[in-house]
Amino acid sequence: MKKIWHTIKKITKMISRIFGYLFLSLIIIVLLAAFVWYPIKVASYTPTPPEHLAQKTTYLESINVENTEKPNVIIILFDDLGYGDLSSYGNKLIKTPAMDSVAKHGVRFTNFYSSSPVCTPSRAGLLTGRLPIRARAGDHVYFPEGHTIGNFRKVRGSANELPKDEILLPEVFKSAGYKTSMLGKWHLGDIDGHLPNDFGFDEYYGVRYSNDMLPLHIYRNATIEEEDKTELVSGSKSHTDEQDPIKITGLDQTQLTEKYTREAVKFINNNKDEPFFLYFSHSFPHVPHYASKEHEGKSAGGLYGDVVEDLDRSVQSVMDALAANGLEENTLVIITSDNGADYNGSSGNLRGRKQESYEGGQRVPLIVQWKNKLPEGLVTDEMAMNIDFFPTLLSLLNIKLPTDRIIDGTNIMPAIEGTGSPNDILYYTSAASGEITGIRNDNYKYHEGGFNAFPLFMGMGAVMKRKPQLNDILLDNESHNLINKYPNEAASLRSLMYKKIDNINSNKRGWIE
Amino acid sequence: MKKIWHTIKKITKMISRIFGYLFLSLIIIVLLAAFVWYPIKVASYTPTPPEHLAQKTTYLESINVENTEKPNVIIILFDDLGYGDLSSYGNKLIKTPAMDSVAKHGVRFTNFYSSSPVCTPSRAGLLTGRLPIRARAGDHVYFPEGHTIGNFRKVRGSANELPKDEILLPEVFKSAGYKTSMLGKWHLGDIDGHLPNDFGFDEYYGVRYSNDMLPLHIYRNATIEEEDKTELVSGSKSHTDEQDPIKITGLDQTQLTEKYTREAVKFINNNKDEPFFLYFSHSFPHVPHYASKEHEGKSAGGLYGDVVEDLDRSVQSVMDALAANGLEENTLVIITSDNGADYNGSSGNLRGRKQESYEGGQRVPLIVQWKNKLPEGLVTDEMAMNIDFFPTLLSLLNIKLPTDRIIDGTNIMPAIEGTGSPNDILYYTSAASGEITGIRNDNYKYHEGGFNAFPLFMGMGAVMKRKPQLNDILLDNESHNLINKYPNEAASLRSLMYKKIDNINSNKRGWIE
Repeated sequence: MKKIWHTIKKITKMISRIFGYLFLSLIIIVLLAAFVWYPIKVASYTPTPPEHLAQKTTYLESINVENTEKPNVIIILFDDLGYGDLSSYGNKLIKTPAMDSVAKHGVRFTNFYSSSPVCTPSRAGLLTGRLPIRARAGDHVYFPEGHTIGNFRKVRGSANELPKDEILLPEVFKSAGYKTSMLGKWHLGDIDGHLPNDFGFDEYYGVRYSNDMLPLHIYRNATIEEEDKTELVSGSKSHTDEQDPIKITGLDQTQLTEKYTREAVKFINNNKDEPFFLYFSHSFPHVPHYASKEHEGKSAGGLYGDVVEDLDRSVQSVMDALAANGLEENTLVIITSDNGADYNGSSGNLRGRKQESYEGGQRVPLIVQWKNKLPEGLVTDEMAMNIDFFPTLLSLLNIKLPTDRIIDGTNIMPAIEGTGSPNDILYYTSAASGEITGIRNDNYKYHEGGFNAFPLFMGMGAVMKRKPQLNDILLDNESHNLINKYPNEAASLRSLMYKKIDNINSNKRGWIE
Repeated sequence: MKKIWHTIKKITKMISRIFGYLFLSLIIIVLLAAFVWYPIKVASYTPTPPEHLAQKTTYLESINVENTEKPNVIIILFDDLGYGDLSSYGNKLIKTPAMDSVAKHGVRFTNFYSSSPVCTPSRAGLLTGRLPIRARAGDHVYFPEGHTIGNFRKVRGSANELPKDEILLPEVFKSAGYKTSMLGKWHLGDIDGHLPNDFGFDEYYGVRYSNDMLPLHIYRNATIEEEDKTELVSGSKSHTDEQDPIKITGLDQTQLTEKYTREAVKFINNNKDEPFFLYFSHSFPHVPHYASKEHEGKSAGGLYGDVVEDLDRSVQSVMDALAANGLEENTLVIITSDNGADYNGSSGNLRGRKQESYEGGQRVPLIVQWKNKLPEGLVTDEMAMNIDFFPTLLSLLNIKLPTDRIIDGTNIMPAIEGTGSPNDILYYTSAASGEITGIRNDNYKYHEGGFNAFPLFMGMGAVMKRKPQLNDILLDNESHNLINKYPNEAASLRSLMYKKIDNINSNKRGWIE
């Protein structure tokens, strides 16, 4: 009896000791990873080496200032404005008379897409004319320098700022003799050498990332003009949700839209006699929501509506400034959003929202106006994506595309003018990875991504893959899967999609030797 | 030096021993819980004691057969049919001519709700006239006897079958001299004493729970008529998703709709001369999807469309049987769904789906026909819920409601006849807990539930609470939160809602002493 008891005691002791040492080792490994390996990895991070910088310089220098056409170009980009957020796109609570008027005198797209269902990638796509993944901006959003997630991006080898060798619209405009200005949210990197002024903007006024990321200083070029003095809680530099945001000290977000707008009007007035390119990238209606005093409580759409109506008034100010300076016939105005509606915005009748590969994630408003140069009041169903702006504008300026890299976009001037169908295929990208997850033609959409179950894992590739889906994009809002109904259509779209995926995987940055 | 080394060794040994014993204890606790406590808890589970059974018996016996009106009543209930799944509700791919015709000759509701965004609770609400939580059927769905989740329900004290003391529609009809029959899916308990025949159905033919739960035997009354011989993987008795279901042996789901339908026609033919109540509870369009050979590949809405069109044909057969027997003027036909659309169904333009407290979770089609007794082709915006059927039908039969319990529903005959507005308030319930999470009046909806992040946790209450939300239910599909815009409206709805919640909490089963 005593012997058995002794044996049990011995075995228990042995087992407990084994577990004990295992557990202790685990703790030591975690501590080493957190306090030795992680900081070393972060510190040893260098932005991608600019091996194609020379080609970029050669290209920009080759642009002949004398040969180019020089209409002014204004791109007004909203943050998280949904497909159904404007009255011209069917919203019954929010009133947007200014943008409705722009649409009435210009062209309105019903099948226009951002190049990603999330912020940073979409902006990279818009400014480079390339799919976001090519600019190392595919896997969700860049984070503020020093933020845990920003550091984590570096540890796993993701970029946290746009590579210097990418050619951006402002650089092309600048090389073509334009005055270039950027207002508002950048979100393509917040370290030296990767800021708006480093990518061709003569002037910059705005914030470096989303208005829920801290510290939210307002910069004029490289200098802080208004300092966000909010005390940061270690490790976390984000606001919480829109109805309970971290209180910011030293920065009044209710004034943000108005401040940007004043700068826009000033820029137009100051540059009425020379060609200009203005990239006006609003911080709203991204969360947390703040409207100016003038609009607070005014919209039937609640606080969100106030914010959007405030933005609409900003558009009116820009249009007024153009008219006052007699620039309407010489200025192409483009109004769009960086991705679909977030929680409190409207996707209209589309399925899904920001972060998702459903239509609501990437389909957004696009309104284009150019007085006496474009059809008045045209509503077009032609497909287009924000990566198309780059080749479209270069073509407009009579500037050849760079030949050292793939430009994924298409010249959509025929669609804007109502004379042709430049795109018969578009690709959707995953918010998490930037990889192609879907494809559409005029009638059908094939996608494998669907719903991102864990968008909060910020680009860690945590996409819950649904089964492949084929949808009738005209008659149904992605409810009924037709994959077994039209296997040939599905196979043909799938094959096109994987061809593109293979093409990208074999040459992610898209260099042409 | 040697001493320091000795101390370190000693401390390490001590720490590892502590961790080791903790870990070992944890393992022992887990093993005890799994193999001793859990089986004891499951074995000691008894369905709720029927202390109110006597009152129920007294009530049913008090129904005077002679005094009652005796129109036939048919309730056709679909499983997971979404608000936008029928052509009369805007679907552009799926054709449902039979139901469209019923709507054309009867009344179609645009603001009708199931009493839960999930199966079991909604069925309890429909058959009892009470909010699902009153019948201990609020917290998600019942599971097959022996299933891990079913056992887990018992361990945590949840019901896994409808209490015997609930008064169900078929019991009232039976007491009033009707022939009562149920076809199809029950899902209100699968143990003796809690089956359809135990709750007033003279005849039963169908399956005991959802068509993704195994074993899926077809029963005739208490006897297995067709045996599901699928080999069950221990612990898991569910199918996987719709596109890759577990292969079932011995049961052909493509024949399920047709088998039910044949029984329905037979029942109508056999009972044309006496009053009957038929509760025809289809298994589809719940996943996994199977259409009859006749409909396979026929619908423009793909496999899901095939299934719905197959169901539509079933409705046609029922209507044909009524016409052939000259019963149209003596039969009230009710067609609806147990909750909103699942992944592959359509919510129309509503936000959300099955499991969610958004409109898409609970708003469903309702079509009512009664030849020459109801308006033809009326489309009504009046609010109603499936808990209203019980008091409506009892009133129709001239039977008093039971007085020993709260009946939450309302007589909606005035809404069906187009002469009044019986409901000015409706309550939404959480799929996870059955608790009230929302409330609406004619114009506004106030809700706190929103999106159930983890519906798969099956009633474990894991609801990700969003901030309170007030929505304009007429002009917006729950996108824009108006809570700060209309604080009084929000407060008043909130107050009404919490009054109802308090009322329920103080008397969950709703007994009147």
